[in-house]
Amino acid sequence: MENYLVLFTSAAAVIALVFAALTALKVLKFPEGTETMKKISQSIRIGANTYLTRQYKVVGVFFVVMFAILGVMAIFGLLTPYVPFAFVTGGFFSALSGFVGMKIATASNARTANACRGSLNGGLRVAFSAGSVMGFTVVGLGMLDISIWFALLKYVFNLDPAAITSAMLTFGMGASSMALFARVGGGVFTKAADVGADLVGKVEAGIPEDDPRNPAVIADNVGDNVGDVAGMGADLYESYVGSIISASALGVAAFSGNIAAMGLPLLLASVGIICSILGTFLVRTKEGASQKQLLKALSTGTNFSAIVIAIVSLPLVYFVLGKENWAFYFAILAGLFAGVLIGQATEYFTSDTYKPTKKLSASAETGSATTIISGLSLGMLSTALPIVIIAVAIMIAYFVSGGAQSATMGLYGIALAAVGMLSTLGITLATDAYGPVADNAGGIAQMAGLEEDVRTRTDALDSLGNTTAATGKGFAIGSAALTALALMASYIETVTKMPGGDAAMAAEKLSLMNPTVLIGLFIGACLPFVFAALTMESVGRAAQSVVIEVRRQFKEILGLMEGKADADYAKCVDLCTRASLKEMILPTVVAVVVPVAVGLLLGPTGVVGMLGGATASGFLLAIFMSNSGGAWDNAKKYIESGVHGGKGSDAHKAAVVGDTVGDPFKDTSGPAINILIKLLSMVSIVFAALVLNFNLIGLF
Amino acid sequence: MENYLVLFTSAAAVIALVFAALTALKVLKFPEGTETMKKISQSIRIGANTYLTRQYKVVGVFFVVMFAILGVMAIFGLLTPYVPFAFVTGGFFSALSGFVGMKIATASNARTANACRGSLNGGLRVAFSAGSVMGFTVVGLGMLDISIWFALLKYVFNLDPAAITSAMLTFGMGASSMALFARVGGGVFTKAADVGADLVGKVEAGIPEDDPRNPAVIADNVGDNVGDVAGMGADLYESYVGSIISASALGVAAFSGNIAAMGLPLLLASVGIICSILGTFLVRTKEGASQKQLLKALSTGTNFSAIVIAIVSLPLVYFVLGKENWAFYFAILAGLFAGVLIGQATEYFTSDTYKPTKKLSASAETGSATTIISGLSLGMLSTALPIVIIAVAIMIAYFVSGGAQSATMGLYGIALAAVGMLSTLGITLATDAYGPVADNAGGIAQMAGLEEDVRTRTDALDSLGNTTAATGKGFAIGSAALTALALMASYIETVTKMPGGDAAMAAEKLSLMNPTVLIGLFIGACLPFVFAALTMESVGRAAQSVVIEVRRQFKEILGLMEGKADADYAKCVDLCTRASLKEMILPTVVAVVVPVAVGLLLGPTGVVGMLGGATASGFLLAIFMSNSGGAWDNAKKYIESGVHGGKGSDAHKAAVVGDTVGDPFKDTSGPAINILIKLLSMVSIVFAALVLNFNLIGLF
Repeated sequence: MENYLVLFTSAAAVIALVFAALTALKVLKFPEGTETMKKISQSIRIGANTYLTRQYKVVGVFFVVMFAILGVMAIFGLLTPYVPFAFVTGGFFSALSGFVGMKIATASNARTANACRGSLNGGLRVAFSAGSVMGFTVVGLGMLDISIWFALLKYVFNLDPAAITSAMLTFGMGASSMALFARVGGGVFTKAADVGADLVGKVEAGIPEDDPRNPAVIADNVGDNVGDVAGMGADLYESYVGSIISASALGVAAFSGNIAAMGLPLLLASVGIICSILGTFLVRTKEGASQKQLLKALSTGTNFSAIVIAIVSLPLVYFVLGKENWAFYFAILAGLFAGVLIGQATEYFTSDTYKPTKKLSASAETGSATTIISGLSLGMLSTALPIVIIAVAIMIAYFVSGGAQSATMGLYGIALAAVGMLSTLGITLATDAYGPVADNAGGIAQMAGLEEDVRTRTDALDSLGNTTAATGKGFAIGSAALTALALMASYIETVTKMPGGDAAMAAEKLSLMNPTVLIGLFIGACLPFVFAALTMESVGRAAQSVVIEVRRQFKEILGLMEGKADADYAKCVDLCTRASLKEMILPTVVAVVVPVAVGLLLGPTGVVGMLGGATASGFLLAIFMSNSGGAWDNAKKYIESGVHGGKGSDAHKAAVVGDTVGDPFKDTSGPAINILIKLLSMVSIVFAALVLNFNLIGLF
Repeated sequence: MENYLVLFTSAAAVIALVFAALTALKVLKFPEGTETMKKISQSIRIGANTYLTRQYKVVGVFFVVMFAILGVMAIFGLLTPYVPFAFVTGGFFSALSGFVGMKIATASNARTANACRGSLNGGLRVAFSAGSVMGFTVVGLGMLDISIWFALLKYVFNLDPAAITSAMLTFGMGASSMALFARVGGGVFTKAADVGADLVGKVEAGIPEDDPRNPAVIADNVGDNVGDVAGMGADLYESYVGSIISASALGVAAFSGNIAAMGLPLLLASVGIICSILGTFLVRTKEGASQKQLLKALSTGTNFSAIVIAIVSLPLVYFVLGKENWAFYFAILAGLFAGVLIGQATEYFTSDTYKPTKKLSASAETGSATTIISGLSLGMLSTALPIVIIAVAIMIAYFVSGGAQSATMGLYGIALAAVGMLSTLGITLATDAYGPVADNAGGIAQMAGLEEDVRTRTDALDSLGNTTAATGKGFAIGSAALTALALMASYIETVTKMPGGDAAMAAEKLSLMNPTVLIGLFIGACLPFVFAALTMESVGRAAQSVVIEVRRQFKEILGLMEGKADADYAKCVDLCTRASLKEMILPTVVAVVVPVAVGLLLGPTGVVGMLGGATASGFLLAIFMSNSGGAWDNAKKYIESGVHGGKGSDAHKAAVVGDTVGDPFKDTSGPAINILIKLLSMVSIVFAALVLNFNLIGLF
C-alpha cells in the first residue's frame, strides 16, 4: 500500500478542499440583504482583514527569527535541515486555515441574517455551510500539508519512515506557535471588545447588546471573527495535524519502521473526511423548529459521521495493521467515545437545561459574589468527569494495543485514540464554527434594525451555537490531552534515538521520585496557571482601554446617544488590534522559551516531568475555565429568559458579572491552554538535541 | 545518644507545655473589662465551646468506624496492631491542640480589647501571648505524642527503629483526618457566618461590620475561633508531626536503621522549641507604634528564632550524623530559607504596600467583574515564584544530602528541609494565631461601644494580623508540599519493604510513561480541584442559610434596627454549627476513600502517580486561592483607607464582592488543600498492604 498512501491522503485533501470551495461558492450566491446590512458587514470584514494582516506581520517577525535560530541549529547538526522549512510550512498552513475561516465567516454573516428574513432553515443552511467551509478547509489543508511533506521526504529525499515522521513532527511546532498567536491575539481582541462594549454600553449606559450607538459594537463583531473563527481555525488545524503526525511517529516506533502503522492515522483521517462530508448533507431543519429540533439537525450530521467512521475503521485497522493487530480498533473507538462523552459532560455542566447551571442561576439571587463562588466551584467540580473519561480511554487504548507487552505499542494506541477523536473534525468543526457566524448575523440584524422575528431566528441559531461550542470544546480539550501524551511519548522516542539518549531516557530515570522529574512536574503544572494569568491580564488591560475609549466617545460625540451622530467604530477596532497584538507576544514567547530553559537546567528527564505536569494541570484548568465560563454565559441567558426576575433584575446584574468574568475564561485562557500543552511538547522535540547535549545537570 | 533521645524530646515537650501554661496564667490575670465586654466574650466562648463539643461528637463517630476498620485489617495481618491505637492518639492530640487554642483565644479576646484601652503595647502583649499559648501547645503536644509513642514502642515493645517509624507514621493519618475535619468544619462555619453577616448586614442593611444589631455578629466572632484558631491548631499540629515522623522514617531507610538519622528530626524540632521560646521574649513595642514598627516587633522575634536555629543546627547535624554527613545541614537551611522566601512572596502578592494589590484595588474602579478577573489572575500568577523557590529548595536538599548516590538519602534531605522550615513553628504560629484574637478584640470593642481610639488600636493589631497570616500561610503551604513529598517517599519505602513490594515499586515502574502512574497523576491532580469545589459549595450553601435567617430576624424582630431589641444570636450560631458539621463530612470521606479506591484499581504505582499529581496541583491551587483571597481582602482594606473613592464608593462595593469571593478561597478551600495532600499520603501508607495485595491491575 506504500505508494497508494500518499495518493489516498492527497485525494482526501483535495476532496475536502474542493468540497469547501463548492460550499463557499454556494454561500456566496446568497444575497447580502439591505444596503445597511452590506455596509455593516463590510465594516466587520475590513476590521477583521486589517487585524489579521497586521497580526501576520507581527507573527512573521517571530517566524523569521525562529527560522534563523533553527537554521543555525541545523548548521551545527542539532537538527535535520528539513526542520526550519517544516516549521515555516506548519505555521503558514495554520495561518491560512484561520484566514480562510475568517474570510468565509465575514462573507456569510449578513447573508445568514438575510436568509433568516426568509426562514429559520434558510439561516441554518447558510450559517452551517459557512462553518463547513471552515471545517473542511482546516482538514483539507492539514492533509495537504502532510501529503506534500510525505511525498517530498519519501520520493525526493528518499528518507525512511522513522526519518520522515521525525521531520514531520517538527512542523507541528510551526502550527502550534501560529495557533497560540492566533488564539491569544484573537481571544484578547474579541474579549476586550466584548467586555468593553458590555461594561460601558450595557451596564453603564443601559443600551442593549449590539446597539449601533455603542462605539465598540463593530469591534465586538470583528472579534467574533478573528477570535472565535480565525483563532479556532488555526487552533484546530494544529490539533488535527499534531494528533496525526504524533500517531504516525509512534506507529513507526512501535512497529519498527513499518509503514503500515505509520499510514494508519493518515488513512483514518482521510476516511474521516469522507464520512464528515456525507454527514453535512443530513443537516437541515424545518421552519418553526424548536431549539431541540435545531440541535437534532446538527447532531444528526455529526452522529452519522461518527457512526460511519466507527464502522469503517474496523476493516481499515484489520487490513492495514493485519488481523493479529485488529484490537487497535478499540483504541480508536475509545477515543471516539471519549470525545463524545466529554462533550456531553461539558453540556451537562454548562447548559441551562441541567441542574448545575440552573443552580448557578439561582445563586445570582444573592448577588454577584455568590454567583462567582458558585460558578468557580461548578467549573472545578466539572473536571472530575472528563478526568475519569479520559483515564478510562487511556487505559483501554493502552491495553488493547498491547501496552502490557510493549509500552510503545500502548502509546501508539493512545495516539490512535486521539486521531479517532478528531477523525470527524470536518463536521464537528463545521457545527462549532457556525456559532460565531450566527452570532454575527444576530448583531447585524440588530444593528440594521431588522424585524423582531428575524432577530428571534438569529437568536435561536446563536443559542444553539453555545451548545455546539460546548461539545466542540469537549473534543478540543480531550484531543489536546491525548495528543499531548502522544507527543510526550514522541519526545521520549526522539531523545532515545539520539546518541546517548537511550541511557538518558531509561524508564527508571523517568521515575516520579527522580528529583528532576518531580521538579519538572511542579514547574510544568505551574505553567498553565501562569499562562491563564497572563492571558486574563491581557484581556483586562485591553478591555480597560476600550472602556476608556467608549466612555470618551459617549461623552464627546454629541448626539450619539440620541442616534443623531455616528460612533467612531474604527477607533475601537484599531485600539483592540493594537492592544491584542501587543498582548499576544509575551505568552507565546514564554511557551517557547520555558521548555528550552527547563531542558537546559534539568535535562531531558526534567522536560518529561514538565510535560506531564503541564498536561495534567492544563487539562484541568482548561476544563475548569471553559465550563465556568460557559455556565455563567448560559446562566445569564437563562435569567434573561424570564426566571429569577428576568432582564434588568438584580439577579440579572449579578449574572452579567459572572458572564463578564467567564468571557476571558472560556474564550481566551481556556482554549489557549489547550494549545500550550501541545506547543510545549513540540518545542521540546525540536530542541531535544540541544537539551540532550548541553544541559547543566548532566543527565541525572 | 539512643537513650538520651527520648529524654531530650520529652524535656522539650514539657518545656513547651509549661511555657504555654505559664503564659496562659499570665494572660488570664488581665482583666476582661466592662460588663458588656464580659457578656459578649462569654457568648463567643459558649458558641465556640458548643460548636467544638458537637464537632468532636461527629468526628468521634468517624474515629470509631475507622478504628474498627483498622482493627479488622490488623487482625487480618494487613497492619501492625499498633496502628489503630496510633491513629486514635494522632486524632486526639490534634483535636486537643485545636481545643486548647480555642480556649485561650476566647479567653483573651476581651482581655486584648481591654488592654488596648490602656495602650497599644499592652494589647499586643496580650494578643501575642494568647497566640504563644496556642503555638507552644501545638508543638508541645506534638513532641509529647511522639515521645510517648517512641518510648512505648522502643522500651515496652522492643521494636527496632524501622518498625518504630513505620508505626508512628500511621498516627499521622489520625492527625490529618482530624485536621481536615477541623479545617473544613471550622472554615465553613467562619466563612458562612462572615459572608452571611456581610451580605445582609453590610451590603443590604448598610450597618457597619461587627454591629451588635447584626444577628450573625456573634457567629462571625465564634467562627474566627473555631476556624482560624481551632482549625489552624489541628492543621499545624498535623503539619508539624507529619514532617517530623516522615523525616525520621526516611532517616531510618537512608541510614539503614541508624537511630541517629531517625533522631535528628526529633532533636532539631526540640532545639527549635527552645529557640522559639527565646524569640517570644523579644516581641514588644512602644505606644503609638506604626504598623511597620508593630510588624518589626513580631518579626524581630521570629527572625531571631530562625537565626538561632540556623546556627545551632550546624553543630547538631555535625554531632548527630557525623562529620562526613554535615552537608545535610544545608538541606535544613534550604527549608528554613524557602519558608521565609515563600512567606515574603506571599506578602508581596497580597499586601497593599506592593504593586499587585495596588493594581487590584485600581481594577475595582471598573466594577466587580474586573476586580474578580484581576484577583484571579493575580493569584494564578503568584504561583510561579513559590514553585521556583520550592524547586530550588528541593534540588539543594536532595543533592547536598547525597541524592546523586542514593535516592533515599536525597529524599531524607527533602524531609529534613520540611522539618527545618517548621522547626520554629512555636513562634511563627504564635504570630499567626494572634491575628484572630486581635480580630475578635476589635469585634468586642465595636460591639461594646468602646472609645474610637481603642478601636483604632485593635484595627492596627488586626491589620498586622493579615500580614502575619500571609507569612504563616507561606510556611504552611511550603511545608505541606515538602512533607507531602517526604510522605510519598515514605509510602514507596513502606511498600518496598513488604513481601513482593520491592518489585512493585521498582524505579522503572514509577516512570511517568507507565499508564497507571500517568492516570494516577491525572486523578491526583484533579482531587484538589474537586475538593476546592466541594468546600466552596459548602460555604455557599451554609452562607445561604445564614442570609435567610438574618433577613428573617431583621424583618420579624421589631425594633432590632433601632437598637431597641436584641437579635437572636444563638440561632445563627446554631445554624452555622449544624450547617458546618453537615458539610465537613463529604470532603473528608472523599479524601479517605479516593486513595484506597485508586490503589485498588490502579495498584501502588497508580497511588504514587496520584500523590505526585495531588501534591503538584494542590500546592498550586492552595497558593492561588490563598493569595487571591488575601489580595482581595487587602485591596478592600486599601480602598477603605480612602483611595479610589474610599468607603461606600462604587469601587468599594466592587472590592467587597472580591473580598467575599476571597473568603472561602483563603480561609476554607486553600488551607484545607494543604491538609488534603498530606492526608492522601497518610491514608495510602496505612492501606498500603491492602492495596499491594488486592489491587485489580496486578501490579502493572
